[in-house]
Amino acid sequence: MRTGVWLIGARGSVAVTALTGALALRAGLVAPTGCVTELPELRGADLPGWADLEFGGHDVVALPVVKKAESLADAGVLPGRLVAALTDDLARVEQELRPLPSADTQAQTAAAITADLRDFQQRHALDRVVVVDVATTEPAPEPHAAHWSLAALRTALRGAQPVLPASALAAYAAFEAGCAFVDFTPSTGARLPALAELAAEAGLPYAGNDGKTGETLVKSVLAPMFALRHLQVTSWSGLNLLGGGDGANLADPAANAAKVASKQRVLGDALGYTPEGTSRIEHVAEIGDFKTAWDLITFAGFLGTGMRMEFTWHGCDSALAAPLVLDLARLTAAAHRAGRHGPLTELGFFFKDPLGDGPAGLTAQWDTLVSFSASLGRTR
Amino acid sequence: MRTGVWLIGARGSVAVTALTGALALRAGLVAPTGCVTELPELRGADLPGWADLEFGGHDVVALPVVKKAESLADAGVLPGRLVAALTDDLARVEQELRPLPSADTQAQTAAAITADLRDFQQRHALDRVVVVDVATTEPAPEPHAAHWSLAALRTALRGAQPVLPASALAAYAAFEAGCAFVDFTPSTGARLPALAELAAEAGLPYAGNDGKTGETLVKSVLAPMFALRHLQVTSWSGLNLLGGGDGANLADPAANAAKVASKQRVLGDALGYTPEGTSRIEHVAEIGDFKTAWDLITFAGFLGTGMRMEFTWHGCDSALAAPLVLDLARLTAAAHRAGRHGPLTELGFFFKDPLGDGPAGLTAQWDTLVSFSASLGRTR
Amino acid sequence: MRTGVWLIGARGSVAVTALTGALALRAGLVAPTGCVTELPELRGADLPGWADLEFGGHDVVALPVVKKAESLADAGVLPGRLVAALTDDLARVEQELRPLPSADTQAQTAAAITADLRDFQQRHALDRVVVVDVATTEPAPEPHAAHWSLAALRTALRGAQPVLPASALAAYAAFEAGCAFVDFTPSTGARLPALAELAAEAGLPYAGNDGKTGETLVKSVLAPMFALRHLQVTSWSGLNLLGGGDGANLADPAANAAKVASKQRVLGDALGYTPEGTSRIEHVAEIGDFKTAWDLITFAGFLGTGMRMEFTWHGCDSALAAPLVLDLARLTAAAHRAGRHGPLTELGFFFKDPLGDGPAGLTAQWDTLVSFSASLGRTR
Amino acid sequence: MRTGVWLIGARGSVAVTALTGALALRAGLVAPTGCVTELPELRGADLPGWADLEFGGHDVVALPVVKKAESLADAGVLPGRLVAALTDDLARVEQELRPLPSADTQAQTAAAITADLRDFQQRHALDRVVVVDVATTEPAPEPHAAHWSLAALRTALRGAQPVLPASALAAYAAFEAGCAFVDFTPSTGARLPALAELAAEAGLPYAGNDGKTGETLVKSVLAPMFALRHLQVTSWSGLNLLGGGDGANLADPAANAAKVASKQRVLGDALGYTPEGTSRIEHVAEIGDFKTAWDLITFAGFLGTGMRMEFTWHGCDSALAAPLVLDLARLTAAAHRAGRHGPLTELGFFFKDPLGDGPAGLTAQWDTLVSFSASLGRTR
Repeated sequence: MRTGVWLIGARGSVAVTALTGALALRAGLVAPTGCVTELPELRGADLPGWADLEFGGHDVVALPVVKKAESLADAGVLPGRLVAALTDDLARVEQELRPLPSADTQAQTAAAITADLRDFQQRHALDRVVVVDVATTEPAPEPHAAHWSLAALRTALRGAQPVLPASALAAYAAFEAGCAFVDFTPSTGARLPALAELAAEAGLPYAGNDGKTGETLVKSVLAPMFALRHLQVTSWSGLNLLGGGDGANLADPAANAAKVASKQRVLGDALGYTPEGTSRIEHVAEIGDFKTAWDLITFAGFLGTGMRMEFTWHGCDSALAAPLVLDLARLTAAAHRAGRHGPLTELGFFFKDPLGDGPAGLTAQWDTLVSFSASLGRTR
Repeated sequence: MRTGVWLIGARGSVAVTALTGALALRAGLVAPTGCVTELPELRGADLPGWADLEFGGHDVVALPVVKKAESLADAGVLPGRLVAALTDDLARVEQELRPLPSADTQAQTAAAITADLRDFQQRHALDRVVVVDVATTEPAPEPHAAHWSLAALRTALRGAQPVLPASALAAYAAFEAGCAFVDFTPSTGARLPALAELAAEAGLPYAGNDGKTGETLVKSVLAPMFALRHLQVTSWSGLNLLGGGDGANLADPAANAAKVASKQRVLGDALGYTPEGTSRIEHVAEIGDFKTAWDLITFAGFLGTGMRMEFTWHGCDSALAAPLVLDLARLTAAAHRAGRHGPLTELGFFFKDPLGDGPAGLTAQWDTLVSFSASLGRTR
Repeated sequence: MRTGVWLIGARGSVAVTALTGALALRAGLVAPTGCVTELPELRGADLPGWADLEFGGHDVVALPVVKKAESLADAGVLPGRLVAALTDDLARVEQELRPLPSADTQAQTAAAITADLRDFQQRHALDRVVVVDVATTEPAPEPHAAHWSLAALRTALRGAQPVLPASALAAYAAFEAGCAFVDFTPSTGARLPALAELAAEAGLPYAGNDGKTGETLVKSVLAPMFALRHLQVTSWSGLNLLGGGDGANLADPAANAAKVASKQRVLGDALGYTPEGTSRIEHVAEIGDFKTAWDLITFAGFLGTGMRMEFTWHGCDSALAAPLVLDLARLTAAAHRAGRHGPLTELGFFFKDPLGDGPAGLTAQWDTLVSFSASLGRTR
Repeated sequence: MRTGVWLIGARGSVAVTALTGALALRAGLVAPTGCVTELPELRGADLPGWADLEFGGHDVVALPVVKKAESLADAGVLPGRLVAALTDDLARVEQELRPLPSADTQAQTAAAITADLRDFQQRHALDRVVVVDVATTEPAPEPHAAHWSLAALRTALRGAQPVLPASALAAYAAFEAGCAFVDFTPSTGARLPALAELAAEAGLPYAGNDGKTGETLVKSVLAPMFALRHLQVTSWSGLNLLGGGDGANLADPAANAAKVASKQRVLGDALGYTPEGTSRIEHVAEIGDFKTAWDLITFAGFLGTGMRMEFTWHGCDSALAAPLVLDLARLTAAAHRAGRHGPLTELGFFFKDPLGDGPAGLTAQWDTLVSFSASLGRTR
């Protein structure tokens, strides 16, 4: 099962960490810590192996992958010796990266993306390709009538005015090229009726949105804990301090709003009500790739007694996200092979803001994932 | 289903909070926050209602229940207005409390306890009585040959030397009186082969041990989170600062050891390995009934990247424990009625160190509890 | 030395806590915890005693002081028994409270305030009166040419358009009545050239701004610690979660901006540079009168090694502010008596954003305060 | 002013960080972050410059300095590029390190240490040498009569039984060699009457004990904050989690006791009373050279209102200690040159458990240090 993984934002921290890790796993240099598809409960599924994966991608920046990997090593995200050992492999991936096309009309841009995808698939004789969006978060797009129907969308894309945000254009182009699509960001991606129509027509699966890597992951187990104990959460407030490229981008209020909404959804879903409080994001360049989140939860117990819990999460977003990117690529490829199409609602385990109406608690999401994995066949 | 709840340690903080709360629930003065048997998933079971419960108990101290309730109100554990409104009801419960018997031999002491239980059951025409141990934690007992067989135990109890710790003597007496038994503490309780033999012979169920109210509750959701994400927990260290009577008692190293072992078990069970670190308990009288626990968790992610999480839990142990005491009394009574006997291993949801080999993760324990509850009949 | 203390915002939490505490201290019911003027180093100054103080004040709300005190007792800010014991005394203070005047022109309003102050002073035969602003924080005012000269200001006040924010109008009226003025809030108060001119003309002292009660107090000792150890603070970010009236008011972005600026000033002053990061304020009604602030400080040590510190402050703002209000009233009265006029720059110990260019570190501010206190005479 | 710095424990983390840093400063490769003698207030003193310092030392282990520096770079304590750039310089220092002598009697061992010191001084034509103990913490020694008089000590040292702990023997040998002595650890060092007698006789200064690098540093500013605000600290509890060599050593209860006592002294000194609570140390190998300390402080404010503060300190002990080692060597050398002898009580700024009865608050200690520095002459 030769599988291509095409990364939108291929020169960013998450992508380069995922690339380096996949190469290291293929070379047997590291253990698959953080890869949930390597847990016993999921290992039975017929997923592409590390040696079956081929990587390529688009980016708007030009920094060579090896340089990016070295800077991640300096920042403590990647082990320096690993980067040194994989320099040649990374240089080979460099050959598969392309500048993100940009043409006069979005139809032309999409065609250029599609051409890159087809070329990638043919040159490597890949059975299928999964496109994964790990580019920085976009502002929420303006509503547009063409978002509601594929026919209207095709017409509009040929106009001079952009009609889709970049993430949705990438999903459109992926589907046109016969590729499955994963949106690891809170951006729009495939979440438009016109694109759902296209995926259905093309028989392609897609997954998303917004990888659940830190504070929200913790929320997805703590909120059910309060619910199962019948404790009343009276407020839940948080502050996320993060540097790095995504941090700077999220300082933009429009992008921030998308992310913040995505982060609070889990509380309402898991508790059945939305407690007071918000989750803020603030850019602190000095903090770099390691993010610090602090949450204060106040709650009432028996007879109304007020109590409280705080937590601080100090995690490296790239190190948390990268193995999930690989997991999602493998699972989505297997789903494609197994004939699944449309939204993969069983993958809520991975996302802050999952497609569909699945459970919000992490353990329930895990149970769903285990069943999903089992349904993909065990021929390996 | 008239049900007696007999509390060992009936004048302590947990017992008086449970008593006050049950009276308030019966009077419709409060919502059942913190009572898991009032969640929709468990509400269907045929459990005794608040009006079906009659309370009595033993204690070695003599402080009137109303005085204790008032001091808990001063400490912020109980609402003062609730205590004032329930003074008459609490005074009625006062009539059902007895000094804990103490005679020349443990056989005589047990007989006196049994007589108190039978008298309580008869005077109130109760269908059954559940004995709940909420007394302070004991040191681990010396091993004794008579712990291994009921016949040997009966003989040894008639000797001049004590052979059972107080919690186990209470379980013995409860079983002799035909009562189910719940050990809410880390003490021995019914956990001796001779007592298992007696419970089997008498057809009685029992539950335990050590109510899961704070730091360990959090561990039971966080440890599975790390496991499900294939993250490697490299150390987990904690400090519990607590005042109150239990705090002073736990400053005794022997009692402390029992509690600490109970608190760490969840990590090994949920992770499949035991990370470095210990969980310490320290008595700080000034902190009173509110306990502060701090935990530091270090973990490794993809490619070995080191990350960390801290949490602080500031909870009122009595307010967290009391509703669970009521839940356990109701569930154990229903199990008794349904003909269940021996260890109720399905109640791991409530305990730090549960009987049997059930799952360690809170959500899996919840699923087990829901099934158990459903099996108890839905005739209400 | 009969001294009046006139509180602007006399029915708010800080004022009522200060009132209740002063009455309790006069009655000998409590120790003067939190009152720095009762420390040995300051006790020598010739300050008015607790029995020398008479209280009055203005407010726009009408909630009786006793009711407010009872609600503070319910919230855990005041001991209920103390409020009960002082009900008569609080009712006597109630007689001295007046609705904040509001007339057609600000000149008329000021005259009404002045009349209230003179009436208060005469009825009680007070040697002097200190006006203390503890009203909620105002937005920063629009600049106005009349702020720059007393003559222009007097003219403008007679116009139909308001020219001064409420806090500055209070300072104006206080000076007109011959009273010293303390601004315990971040509002404008006496900080306008026209008001400085008036204070100089009238020979009156004034103090401010913004009582230093929580997070900023901690900053004022931690920032010097980093500086004295030659450690480089690379970022300092904070989040303040607070309920209560002031919390709701500070959710207003304009008021928030004034407060946030005030909170960050200490870092630049103490470190000699301003590290990255901001200090945010968020209203969480559920948290009530107890405020939780969390700060993350990252810093570089020898050879650039990155390190970090976090702190959480869980304080009751009213309980922290009230004794300082009493301290400031006593010290300002003594300064007035000693012939001091203009800005009392030696009182930086008490303020987030002190008048003048004094030191930012708490210990240096303390040394200044001790000298100031000594200079006020020791005739008591 | 050619000055030797002789490190006892020269191959440990603190020593190698200090060595590397001093070489980097001499080469102009880094800024002197963390060196307080480079702050403007102290820069005027006539201290030896970076180029005036020559390093040597003793250790019981044999790991080459360059290897140790490389392992510190891997652990994130030292920048890898700096270690690479200084390899030759470190190799030169390697030539000056000697195995710690150990002979049949302590008198012979001391003579061998003294000989090494004299040889070092002569070969490099040093004006003077400061011996600094940065070896791991010792258990508190058994009392011995010979500790009380120099004559008795000299006799006892010639016996077969050891009479001095290693740190005190090092101080003895240093004084015999005419060298000043700094004890950066909580070990005995020069703190014995017999050694005070020797230092006086030889006209030599000494300093100590126990470098103040983390939790205690924070305590030394927070405790005065509570005192200056007249807030009553009701409990102060802490847990220090640390890996590395010193962590393992401190897991030994005897060494731990010495350290813990040293860590709590500051509270009693700064507050005037000792609040409830203890400061614990626990070894967690996984945490390595970065230490995490958590403290919970409960305190009472106005009218007894209970409040609380927590802090977490995540610091690299070696990076915090190393610049202070250099500062102390420079200051002690200058004191020696200026004719100071006996305990340098003015250096309390640097120590957890300072010699003499100086102030406990950091700012007061700073003021003392500035005066001391000024008294050492400004001829540079």
